[in-house]
Amino acid sequence: MNTKESVEENKICPLEVAVNTISGKWKIPIVWQINEGKKRPSEFLRGIAKVDRRVLNQQLNEMVADGILMKESFHELPPRVEYSLTELGEKLVKILWQLNDWGKLLIPEDVV
Amino acid sequence: MNTKESVEENKICPLEVAVNTISGKWKIPIVWQINEGKKRPSEFLRGIAKVDRRVLNQQLNEMVADGILMKESFHELPPRVEYSLTELGEKLVKILWQLNDWGKLLIPEDVV
Repeated sequence: MNTKESVEENKICPLEVAVNTISGKWKIPIVWQINEGKKRPSEFLRGIAKVDRRVLNQQLNEMVADGILMKESFHELPPRVEYSLTELGEKLVKILWQLNDWGKLLIPEDVV
Repeated sequence: MNTKESVEENKICPLEVAVNTISGKWKIPIVWQINEGKKRPSEFLRGIAKVDRRVLNQQLNEMVADGILMKESFHELPPRVEYSLTELGEKLVKILWQLNDWGKLLIPEDVV
């Protein structure tokens, strides 16, 4: 989903900002995983096929910077890091559920 | 937004289908334009900066095939073609409005 080029010039379109924010590779799967109760990068790596650790960390950092995720570091040995959804992230999950319901309408009934 | 690789193997995830369906370049801007009352490809070309006609037509065809848009051809001279949202497309617009509202929360207040 690429809407980097502005639909309307000279104006910030919130939909464009929203789409750009969640369009990074793996961002939606990461939100989904956290919503399902997973917290640690190692769990995300198991849950999401084919993502590599470097890319995963980059996506996680961007999502923390955007205010979707919260990162908590535990000073233990070995060190432990956990991610959770912020209020903004929880709101996104609600929209993603609706998008999920909409997606069901796209799937032919004999496949489900 | 690339979720072509499945989050969960051996299972169709409706969210993934939904995201893949709307992630084509210009698809969300096209839906937005039609929602604003535009109907004809020439109007979309004016409304969306930098899209070329060939790519636009390809995206329109895919959206018709997916059941989001309806295409109507008028046998006039010069021939006229109009696109409109199907019921499925209207449902998508409702979700995009929510994503738009969510996007507002991402924009620092001093910018808006």
